[in-house]
Amino acid sequence: MSLFRMQALIERIRKDGVVLNGNILKVGSFLNQQMDVALFNEMGREFARRFTGTRVSKILTIEASGIALACITAQYFNVPAVFAKKAKTANLSGELLTATVPSFTHKTVNSVSVPRDYILSGDSVLLIDDFLAEGSALEGLAAIVRSAGAEVAGAGIAIEKGFQGGGDRLRAAGMRVESLAIVESMDEVRGLVFRD
Amino acid sequence: MSLFRMQALIERIRKDGVVLNGNILKVGSFLNQQMDVALFNEMGREFARRFTGTRVSKILTIEASGIALACITAQYFNVPAVFAKKAKTANLSGELLTATVPSFTHKTVNSVSVPRDYILSGDSVLLIDDFLAEGSALEGLAAIVRSAGAEVAGAGIAIEKGFQGGGDRLRAAGMRVESLAIVESMDEVRGLVFRD
Repeated sequence: MSLFRMQALIERIRKDGVVLNGNILKVGSFLNQQMDVALFNEMGREFARRFTGTRVSKILTIEASGIALACITAQYFNVPAVFAKKAKTANLSGELLTATVPSFTHKTVNSVSVPRDYILSGDSVLLIDDFLAEGSALEGLAAIVRSAGAEVAGAGIAIEKGFQGGGDRLRAAGMRVESLAIVESMDEVRGLVFRD
Repeated sequence: MSLFRMQALIERIRKDGVVLNGNILKVGSFLNQQMDVALFNEMGREFARRFTGTRVSKILTIEASGIALACITAQYFNVPAVFAKKAKTANLSGELLTATVPSFTHKTVNSVSVPRDYILSGDSVLLIDDFLAEGSALEGLAAIVRSAGAEVAGAGIAIEKGFQGGGDRLRAAGMRVESLAIVESMDEVRGLVFRD
């Protein structure tokens, strides 16, 4: 059994995923706008297995597409789940923990925030998200955790687009990133190729 | 035991809810941006108990704050959960089921949509949301379900603001609306008053 692959997820991606324009992978029919909650439970259990022995006191994700996986996963760690909200305006009041997250897909920069008292200095926070590409969302979430004086326990990702490099860059920088399926390439000739 | 009240939720609202400006109830610390997933599981089980004997083939909610409760609840019905997305532009392609949802809080009108193949004509759809006030979100979701030729099995709501009238209006129109806590009033003198 491989360290990286969760076979049930990979098979589902092969069956129901749709590749668009060479680097967009649509999985909305089971992982995003429609959610196969049984599969989410398998993913949550797998994160719990991989992070056995690691202290996790809270789960943090980013709205909206990470919320479902974060909640289901939180059941296996018996901890609350928190999501960072996309904020329209910068916060000057000190009541929020804020980070900026550039979106390469939409060519925008979002400010995301969490109320200060939802992440405490003793917390060990597991970051959860459905996708990891360039890694900017994870970096923003990690910045929020650190600005609270808390520590990042690691990151649990459903699908990493390995060819966009964010996951390996974050691993090299010392973050433990556990992805259940890593897409190495998805060109039209060879189809989807997953990391072993 | 009352038909309407879920005591654990009501106690939590009394303990951690914050009333602002007489008609805003902030429950972000356990029901929205931070989610007490154990409480969500109690709510999901209670919806399953109330809808025992009713066919439910899918759960539909609206992004972002309904997603967590919809997913957790979907576990107790063994069905997929779907959320309606707030769309920036009207859809003319026919690939989406769309409804308009006025927001009284933000004084805006959102268009929300679901891909056509996520709700099918044989579906019996349970609507789930965290809050019910004027009822416009539920009406939008019900319109989406009906436009697919599917039927609305009912609605499961965490907190209904009874004094805003949406729930009773929808019940009078024939929708089965099950709310776990119904706030009848929240003035500053008497505090929070729940329907029995």
